[in-house]
Amino acid sequence: MGTQLGEQTIAFDRPPTIIGYGNIVGPKEGDGLLKDYFDKILEDTLWGEESWEKAESKILNAAINLAIDNAKVPKNDIRYIFAGDLLNQLTASTFAIRDLKKAYFGLYGACSTMGESLVLASMTVEGGFADYCVAATSSHFCGAEKQFRFPLEFGNQRPLTATYTVTGSGAVVIGNTGSGPKITHVTPGRIVDLGIKDAMNMGAAMAPAAADTIITHFKDTGRSADDYDLIITGDLGIVGKKLNRELVNKQGYDLSDNYTDCGIEIFDGDKQDTHAGGSGCGCSAVTLTGYILKEMAKGTFNRVLFIPTGALLSQSSSFQGESIPGIAHAVAIENSQE
Amino acid sequence: MGTQLGEQTIAFDRPPTIIGYGNIVGPKEGDGLLKDYFDKILEDTLWGEESWEKAESKILNAAINLAIDNAKVPKNDIRYIFAGDLLNQLTASTFAIRDLKKAYFGLYGACSTMGESLVLASMTVEGGFADYCVAATSSHFCGAEKQFRFPLEFGNQRPLTATYTVTGSGAVVIGNTGSGPKITHVTPGRIVDLGIKDAMNMGAAMAPAAADTIITHFKDTGRSADDYDLIITGDLGIVGKKLNRELVNKQGYDLSDNYTDCGIEIFDGDKQDTHAGGSGCGCSAVTLTGYILKEMAKGTFNRVLFIPTGALLSQSSSFQGESIPGIAHAVAIENSQE
Repeated sequence: MGTQLGEQTIAFDRPPTIIGYGNIVGPKEGDGLLKDYFDKILEDTLWGEESWEKAESKILNAAINLAIDNAKVPKNDIRYIFAGDLLNQLTASTFAIRDLKKAYFGLYGACSTMGESLVLASMTVEGGFADYCVAATSSHFCGAEKQFRFPLEFGNQRPLTATYTVTGSGAVVIGNTGSGPKITHVTPGRIVDLGIKDAMNMGAAMAPAAADTIITHFKDTGRSADDYDLIITGDLGIVGKKLNRELVNKQGYDLSDNYTDCGIEIFDGDKQDTHAGGSGCGCSAVTLTGYILKEMAKGTFNRVLFIPTGALLSQSSSFQGESIPGIAHAVAIENSQE
Repeated sequence: MGTQLGEQTIAFDRPPTIIGYGNIVGPKEGDGLLKDYFDKILEDTLWGEESWEKAESKILNAAINLAIDNAKVPKNDIRYIFAGDLLNQLTASTFAIRDLKKAYFGLYGACSTMGESLVLASMTVEGGFADYCVAATSSHFCGAEKQFRFPLEFGNQRPLTATYTVTGSGAVVIGNTGSGPKITHVTPGRIVDLGIKDAMNMGAAMAPAAADTIITHFKDTGRSADDYDLIITGDLGIVGKKLNRELVNKQGYDLSDNYTDCGIEIFDGDKQDTHAGGSGCGCSAVTLTGYILKEMAKGTFNRVLFIPTGALLSQSSSFQGESIPGIAHAVAIENSQE
């Protein structure tokens, strides 16, 4: 059972455990700041497939299988899979999961989807509805550019506020028994839209949603930034991270030394020409299953607040003059104090 | 707490209650076989908006508000919203829910999404994570044709196996107290793909998934068709319904007198030129919140198995030669025997 805290947060009475995880990234991510944390680095973005979309499905499928292997539970014991991606109609997930023969929940929260999948998989395990679930997401730079922006062959210039979609996938197995860090609290987020319309500045569009979820998490739980060793948003990048910090600090919380963003951690912006940083469903997924959980295993961090962020635009909504709504889901992950 | 039955099913120990519901449909649906069951019938498909996409958001927003009003709970007591639609990046849902200021889970299961949202909202309430949740979906004929098939102005001919996307939205409020029918069991479905590639025959593509979920539900629960007054799939239409029945009957279950399909019930095929029947996320949603729940309130049906079905294709996946994977989620809804 969960205890409802405040307006949005759930404190788990029997916190579910992250018992395994895995990730796969593309060559650019494998050349970035987190390269030593990834389980598999691809030599090219097609991985032997005929299209970027098929390659993304293969990457997501492989990450899920890796997470299940690392969790050391029989594949048969995995009951449900929660997954999503950025492709229209979630086809990366569909074709990744098709052959796994598991009940599947398709999720869309743009780049916040890793948060959404962790929240729902945790609730499912804690509620006794499953003993083991998988939460996973993926994204692919080439497929995302083709779908949302310009054909790669066009070679468009990208403004410095733009982020760079991560090619990669991260997957987590959540269980009701086993060893590993626990998911103690989740704060699913609401949609926040302050009217930003620039699709090349999604950090600014998402920052108000990130701030809303973080402040709600603090209010609901009575916690503050000091209660965490690390607070890490999904993919706000350089522009959005600054805005988010300002918005949260204005509410009297100090988001400073222990706050960073997956989009900033993943690439070497000075050398890799990634402008405002990394983004995409895969960005927070591979940073979680690479950097965060591996450093938690070493004890570098014991209490982490992980907040994937999403920009809920589409080509149609932008063409029709709509602004870009944002959303962010917070997940508190803690090493057992036993 | 839920009791896990077999491979996929959950039996709820404290079944959550459908305490309110509402729907809105377009003019064609309002001229169909279920016209007397709908709460609001629009005179045109734009409803004063500038685009079909914006109209769909308005319809979904209004259906959610109607369901909450009918549930007679203060809007503040609704904790989470589970919703989805067919538009790329779920923009109908995003802009419908943006102003509701509630934590939101975006779901994509194509036309099975009403099943997915009911499953997750039920689990959330039964697990103690929320006292009240909304589950809702929408679709819009014009927006769906534009996105998935041809511009309406093109006036393409549709084969007789094609279905007609429903313009409409249905929403349900699920609570842990209150009066109304109970959700007693859910069987989330897995992806099934028997290799159908014809996007103008989605009934055939989805039938194997519907059959898989229905058979799994029967096996997991020990129930059979006789345990229900009504078994109703989402939007298989005439072609898919026949195939589904054959597939289920081959496994030794008798799906005959008490089995129908929302896509067949909603339109008057002889007069409305809707070929194989209705489809879209809205089809099962308005049939549930119109016909099914209103007839349950009268006592016509006391035990219903509702199985929304989805075809998980995209334009890219079809262009790239992929077949059409299907999925279906089953929800058992029962009048209290008290």
